[in-house]
Amino acid sequence: MTTPNATHDPQLRSWVASANQAGCDFPIQNLPFGRYRPAGSGEPFRIGVAIGDQVLDLKATGLVHTDDMNVLMSKSPAERQALRAAISAGLAEGSGQAAAWAKAVVAQSAVEMTVPCRIGDYTDFYTGIHHARTVGSLFRPDAPLLPNYQWVPIGYHGRASSIGVSGQRFRRPQGQTKAADAAAPSFGPSKRLDYELELGFFVAQGNALGEPIAVAEAEAHLFGVTLLNDWSARDIQAWEYQPLGPFLSKNFATTLSPWIVTAEALAPFRAPFERPAGDPQPLPYLDAPGNRERGALDIVLETWLQTASMREAGEAPVRLTHGNAREAAYWTPAQLIAHHTVNGCNLQPGDLLGSGTLSGPKPAEAGSLLELTLSGKQPLTLPNGERRSFLEDGDTLILRGYCEREGAVRIGLGEVSGTVEPARG
Amino acid sequence: MTTPNATHDPQLRSWVASANQAGCDFPIQNLPFGRYRPAGSGEPFRIGVAIGDQVLDLKATGLVHTDDMNVLMSKSPAERQALRAAISAGLAEGSGQAAAWAKAVVAQSAVEMTVPCRIGDYTDFYTGIHHARTVGSLFRPDAPLLPNYQWVPIGYHGRASSIGVSGQRFRRPQGQTKAADAAAPSFGPSKRLDYELELGFFVAQGNALGEPIAVAEAEAHLFGVTLLNDWSARDIQAWEYQPLGPFLSKNFATTLSPWIVTAEALAPFRAPFERPAGDPQPLPYLDAPGNRERGALDIVLETWLQTASMREAGEAPVRLTHGNAREAAYWTPAQLIAHHTVNGCNLQPGDLLGSGTLSGPKPAEAGSLLELTLSGKQPLTLPNGERRSFLEDGDTLILRGYCEREGAVRIGLGEVSGTVEPARG
Repeated sequence: MTTPNATHDPQLRSWVASANQAGCDFPIQNLPFGRYRPAGSGEPFRIGVAIGDQVLDLKATGLVHTDDMNVLMSKSPAERQALRAAISAGLAEGSGQAAAWAKAVVAQSAVEMTVPCRIGDYTDFYTGIHHARTVGSLFRPDAPLLPNYQWVPIGYHGRASSIGVSGQRFRRPQGQTKAADAAAPSFGPSKRLDYELELGFFVAQGNALGEPIAVAEAEAHLFGVTLLNDWSARDIQAWEYQPLGPFLSKNFATTLSPWIVTAEALAPFRAPFERPAGDPQPLPYLDAPGNRERGALDIVLETWLQTASMREAGEAPVRLTHGNAREAAYWTPAQLIAHHTVNGCNLQPGDLLGSGTLSGPKPAEAGSLLELTLSGKQPLTLPNGERRSFLEDGDTLILRGYCEREGAVRIGLGEVSGTVEPARG
Repeated sequence: MTTPNATHDPQLRSWVASANQAGCDFPIQNLPFGRYRPAGSGEPFRIGVAIGDQVLDLKATGLVHTDDMNVLMSKSPAERQALRAAISAGLAEGSGQAAAWAKAVVAQSAVEMTVPCRIGDYTDFYTGIHHARTVGSLFRPDAPLLPNYQWVPIGYHGRASSIGVSGQRFRRPQGQTKAADAAAPSFGPSKRLDYELELGFFVAQGNALGEPIAVAEAEAHLFGVTLLNDWSARDIQAWEYQPLGPFLSKNFATTLSPWIVTAEALAPFRAPFERPAGDPQPLPYLDAPGNRERGALDIVLETWLQTASMREAGEAPVRLTHGNAREAAYWTPAQLIAHHTVNGCNLQPGDLLGSGTLSGPKPAEAGSLLELTLSGKQPLTLPNGERRSFLEDGDTLILRGYCEREGAVRIGLGEVSGTVEPARG
């Protein structure tokens, strides 16, 4: 796990003026990676670094010789650290490269983004213990948390092909559902469409089949973090998920924020990770001193909603929730990587691990409508008087994330938005 | 669904003499695709067509201009049918191309094979109703078949990165397991390592996100079939699988046969697909006339085992089981494709769908040791006196498949073998 270094210095400022504004998601201490091209150009996507409200064309700086993000992700920790130091130096106020690099900078408003890398395999975990407990209590009031939860970082494989980037629009899924009192299932559009507030962890260097990554080494295999919306059709899920887990209830769309905030950028925002007293301690293969001291991620997470009628009325999105990943996750990224590979499973650069829904301990910090509305029994009332049990056609759901701490410059994860279109006619 | 045509003519013979021998897996009526290179050469893999005991270099024939199997898979049904007709004509006895093509043929014994295409996403289904019922009865004697089974083609996402080709050797996985009477789980090598006998279905042309493939059109999206061994660690599975399904118990290795037998080659071996009387009929999105008449696959499936001591003693593998996919599967490939996409999920050329374990109705036709040994309670005794409850280190498990029918030439799927190595020290 990297510790803060010169690239995190709060005094650092950039010659890109917008990066120095208070509240900016992308100050020079951040330097996240994404893939962009001039909007509407149809050109191949390039690797860019967000700086203020601009994007730096990374290849044009001469620091890398590829447009392939997965190649960048496969570099060693030392190479990645050196690259970050060089980008930071070039973008810093007073840099001798400012004149040359200024030609490699373009406004974010003039570009379009795509999924930040080729995702070979996507795994979704279930690290949100408050989410697991609340959802469990809706289905199993007597035993909300299953016996394996505090021992096993529960995870399952997701669908890579339907992952999209912020701005994704998708049709309300159709499928089989069955009412509890019905004799047979019926087919139609999902009536309980939900979002899930997650972090996405991208894998850097991988491992060979049969060669696990030890938990103490796992952080070196973490490239960075995005926001992830794991859209979920709760009614389809309830009928299909036994015994092999969720399938069509999830794989119609998953949406990511476009910028990968690197693990190194997050160094000032790592926090102690302690199990509540009385909980089982992790088995040795999931335990490492660094993990306990600095394993947690101190990231503020918010969800916002804009309905179609709000959009038509020119009303801004309304915030539904506000919480922190640190209080929500029962397992750290290092533990997820160690667990995923302990059986010999091979990870590859660009693989994506979802955190699972990150609901805080308080009901108002829930990361899904299933929890916020108690399975639809207590609909939310929005400021304009509209009510929501689940998502309706035309709704745009936005996740935002950022890190704030005394003595460090605020850095942002940006946002991921997605919009529900009507089911196929 | 294609119907038999001139390429299936039982009278057809090839100028590759070995293709005309009785019992051959790869007569001219088969023409399966795989990726090969000269053994030990380190060259890029090329597309080959198996013919007798030889491989035809497809690009060298001039019929295609790519070495990329996924490009071939993305062709339209008419293009694929035309390609098959041209390969058949060129390999037929008396072909004017015989002299030129003879230079593009190499012995299978001189090549190495790899996974037949780039697999973007891998989905494993659960179509074996006898398997589902037997396994269910081991865990839930009162309700062996869950209420959704006869309505929903149950499936879940698998891991693409750890898929290998016949000959794959993998370490026994380690992981968490928990004895029923233990207070806490323990960590170590799996003691209940198993195989699963499956067919693999490869996707041809895909669909756009949000645009389902109708069941009546689905066969046109089926490129072909392989044998698939879904290695499974039963003790890890039992402890981890609630509530999101199998994960580390499956993703350490999955092994495929190297040759994709095309859907068209299987045309003479399609069979009526009827639900047992009294079973629910499929919902309309899963129902199509052609599916009922010719949806099933009449493929004989066998499992063979060679232990380390058998290998040392020069003893051939012993056959464990012999069954037929037609009697094992409750859903057809067309139904799997229609179901997978009905929510808008996008399939891509090269995606792999596993059938799930294809156990026949009789106990001796089971497709896993879990079933054959009743969860280890009734170990098998092998001819050499060894006993097996589950797989032991050094065991090689082989799946074989072939089609035989009066009036048609026998075609084979070849075989997939895999060997268990000791757990990591």
